[in-house]
Amino acid sequence: MADVITPRSVDYAQWYVDVIRAAKLADYSPVRGCMIIRPNGYALWENMRAVLDRMFKETGHENAYFPLFIPESFLAKEAEHVEGFAKECAVVTHSRLKIDENGRLIPDPASKLEENLIVRPTSETIIWDTFSRWIQSWRDLPILINQWANVVRWEMRTRLFLRTMEFLWQEGHTAHATREEAIEEALRILDIYTTFAEEYMAMPVIQGVKTPSERFAGAVETYCIEALMQDGKALQAGTSHFLGQNFAKAFDCKFQNQNNELEYVWATSWGVSTRLIGALVMTHSDDQGLVLPPRLAPTQVVIIPIFRNDAEKSAVLEQAQRMERELKDAGFTVKLDARETHRPGWKFNEYEVQGVPLRIAIGPRDVAQGTVELARRDTRTKETVPQEGLAARVRETLEAIQQNLLARARAFRDEMTTRVDTYEQFKEVLEEKGGFILAHWDGTPETEARIKEETKATIRCIPLDRDAEALGTREEGRDMLTGKPSKQRVVFAKAY
Amino acid sequence: MADVITPRSVDYAQWYVDVIRAAKLADYSPVRGCMIIRPNGYALWENMRAVLDRMFKETGHENAYFPLFIPESFLAKEAEHVEGFAKECAVVTHSRLKIDENGRLIPDPASKLEENLIVRPTSETIIWDTFSRWIQSWRDLPILINQWANVVRWEMRTRLFLRTMEFLWQEGHTAHATREEAIEEALRILDIYTTFAEEYMAMPVIQGVKTPSERFAGAVETYCIEALMQDGKALQAGTSHFLGQNFAKAFDCKFQNQNNELEYVWATSWGVSTRLIGALVMTHSDDQGLVLPPRLAPTQVVIIPIFRNDAEKSAVLEQAQRMERELKDAGFTVKLDARETHRPGWKFNEYEVQGVPLRIAIGPRDVAQGTVELARRDTRTKETVPQEGLAARVRETLEAIQQNLLARARAFRDEMTTRVDTYEQFKEVLEEKGGFILAHWDGTPETEARIKEETKATIRCIPLDRDAEALGTREEGRDMLTGKPSKQRVVFAKAY
Repeated sequence: MADVITPRSVDYAQWYVDVIRAAKLADYSPVRGCMIIRPNGYALWENMRAVLDRMFKETGHENAYFPLFIPESFLAKEAEHVEGFAKECAVVTHSRLKIDENGRLIPDPASKLEENLIVRPTSETIIWDTFSRWIQSWRDLPILINQWANVVRWEMRTRLFLRTMEFLWQEGHTAHATREEAIEEALRILDIYTTFAEEYMAMPVIQGVKTPSERFAGAVETYCIEALMQDGKALQAGTSHFLGQNFAKAFDCKFQNQNNELEYVWATSWGVSTRLIGALVMTHSDDQGLVLPPRLAPTQVVIIPIFRNDAEKSAVLEQAQRMERELKDAGFTVKLDARETHRPGWKFNEYEVQGVPLRIAIGPRDVAQGTVELARRDTRTKETVPQEGLAARVRETLEAIQQNLLARARAFRDEMTTRVDTYEQFKEVLEEKGGFILAHWDGTPETEARIKEETKATIRCIPLDRDAEALGTREEGRDMLTGKPSKQRVVFAKAY
Repeated sequence: MADVITPRSVDYAQWYVDVIRAAKLADYSPVRGCMIIRPNGYALWENMRAVLDRMFKETGHENAYFPLFIPESFLAKEAEHVEGFAKECAVVTHSRLKIDENGRLIPDPASKLEENLIVRPTSETIIWDTFSRWIQSWRDLPILINQWANVVRWEMRTRLFLRTMEFLWQEGHTAHATREEAIEEALRILDIYTTFAEEYMAMPVIQGVKTPSERFAGAVETYCIEALMQDGKALQAGTSHFLGQNFAKAFDCKFQNQNNELEYVWATSWGVSTRLIGALVMTHSDDQGLVLPPRLAPTQVVIIPIFRNDAEKSAVLEQAQRMERELKDAGFTVKLDARETHRPGWKFNEYEVQGVPLRIAIGPRDVAQGTVELARRDTRTKETVPQEGLAARVRETLEAIQQNLLARARAFRDEMTTRVDTYEQFKEVLEEKGGFILAHWDGTPETEARIKEETKATIRCIPLDRDAEALGTREEGRDMLTGKPSKQRVVFAKAY
């Protein structure tokens, strides 16, 4: 029996958990706040990773791997950084367990560490300590490193994929000779994240820059992409930081420039995580379960044979297997589910729940007529098509699904983006509709904090060129709360 | 200036470290026992991972991801397992740091955990806890899971790649309905490891089973592949464990069989790690640096253009770029190093140190004659060949290098494998030659322990069919020490 999925209209948060459970993406684990990523979820992550990894490599980045543990003293070196991470980190204090007099396993006091180790919440400190040994001259620059790793942040309130104590991510760390080059790198990565979100995840995003109070701990500027979920809440989907010389100064990392002068190195860091899987679920899925964009779906096409007796079985399976081969040869990921332990109806439901973009059913009548039934997951529509030219038809349909998902998400996002000019209106839209709100802000942290306190809405970002233009935010006005002058609208929302 | 590499004959251990440093594979880190895997080393690991991952998937395994942290109480559930791992594990006791009255960062006493967490040394416990929820019926079996992850074992004596506190690995965990099926799985994986070692790493191995004293903590049988390094010491390159029902019992994991009876589930686990990079270095490299088998080398072919003036440059580069395209199109990983900041001789040395299997040099005379110079890394031989048909020539040569490396390593291994019948002879061979020693053993842990204590040699394995036949170990005899009867020779060696 299939798992029951709570409708979104009844309980959105429960729907989210139900979809993840029913689609077998992840499970809660006995370790508080940690999740088990099940094969379906991990296969999705592998596909996301493969695309991003290729994009990073095409832009000159290399992968490396740095230690899981960070000495306590490293964290202390960058003042804002320690402020940001010390309050939520796993601290390793001992290197051995022993059985005590009551037969219980305890940390062996004799194994207490001289210096405690932190499980990395992010790796700027250990990497900049290393860069300080790798970099002497301008000839050693730039260094463009990426790392695929697990990190730990001791979050109190966790939610599968969106906020977990341990998560998987990539963290890029780059070192540059000039400020301009570092900013260019941070923005190049923001473009990669944007392309990935929109062209692969089919999830439209706003490119922006964070306000000072929302910056990464230790950054000079934090650039971000912000997406909108179906419940009208925003989700930060990726960040790229221009770190200035902050970490270079903390770890004394200087280089000799072309004029033989010593200068501190300029830095960026950037990352996206398994959180993107949560974003994907919340962007496209429906009350029937997961909906996946074809470019990331671990299985793009499932073939389900329908037969009632051995004669039908052999005829149907023969054609089903031929189609499987044809579609695999054409480069699609295809699964033929010929199990006789489950009925076709059960399978239809199962792959719908799991979000397989395209289902092909073939029965005795199809065999006779040389047809198959194609069913799209996104629109839940069916059509009977000839077997002849199937690969081309599948290609077109998958492409149509990919485009439809993006268009649908974009239409929703646009509909849920509201311009407001008064605080009354702001609170009303926030309360009754949610979504992105474009409003004027006087640029002070005080006003930002007051709005957050009174409404729980935060400034998601100040749109960069592309989206400032699309959204028309670059116009003068007056802060909706204080009436002070403002040069542009910013994007407010309640957020995950 | 290139790094100096200590010759093997002078100091083998230092040679090993020098090669790793000079080839930029890894660095020591400020965290004791942890290493930084540099881009060259990580690219090698990515290639190894890609091949193994494909082999696992082709045999029905799926990837998943389980939590980094293991509750202390989980470790305690399997008696031998806790005995094996409690003495060397990183213990997380707090979830927050704070600044004390002296301005020092300390674990916040208020954040002390109710139950301490262990950084996984291996994941049997957390996975079997999960399996106990996933498995109810024989229909849920088998479960064939693999995980690519980092693990931590608090080793006191560490060595880059071979033994590090944190390392990267894959750990497979499978659940089966019968004992026979589990053993079959463990041996299937041993064959995959063997194929990988011999056909990709070009490293011959002996397939065997461990003696009880060398088994994995919690296993019923540990199967292994054992390789021989150039200094005559053995290296365990991979293990595959038949775990019986030990973990199923510890975590109360039962299934309803086809007769509606409840039974404990049967288990295997298996893993290889970044240790394989150390094995690769020690199997093929020489006093000039790294030597890599073409099937795993991140760069298979490097093209170095040689010119003295702009006219030569443009002619040479044009052909070099054409070759680069041709070879890339043919599926090789190719690097064209046209930098003018470094001289050709420097580059020749650099790529030799980094172990690139094939170097192509092209100068003005080659342009005139339509030739290039091919240089093999394994034999350090050169030949001038026509540009016409280069891709086919490169393919043949890379294949010849791959085969030569395996043949050379196999010849060395065979030469270093000695049959002995007396303990005197055993000690003499061990002292003067090293290598694998095939000797009779009476099957008792006492004799095994005494030999280990007196000579530091351990029983690496009892050869399984393939290698028992090849080595002729299945013959009766008498234990070289006690004179008691023995049914077969076993493989002794000093080991890493």
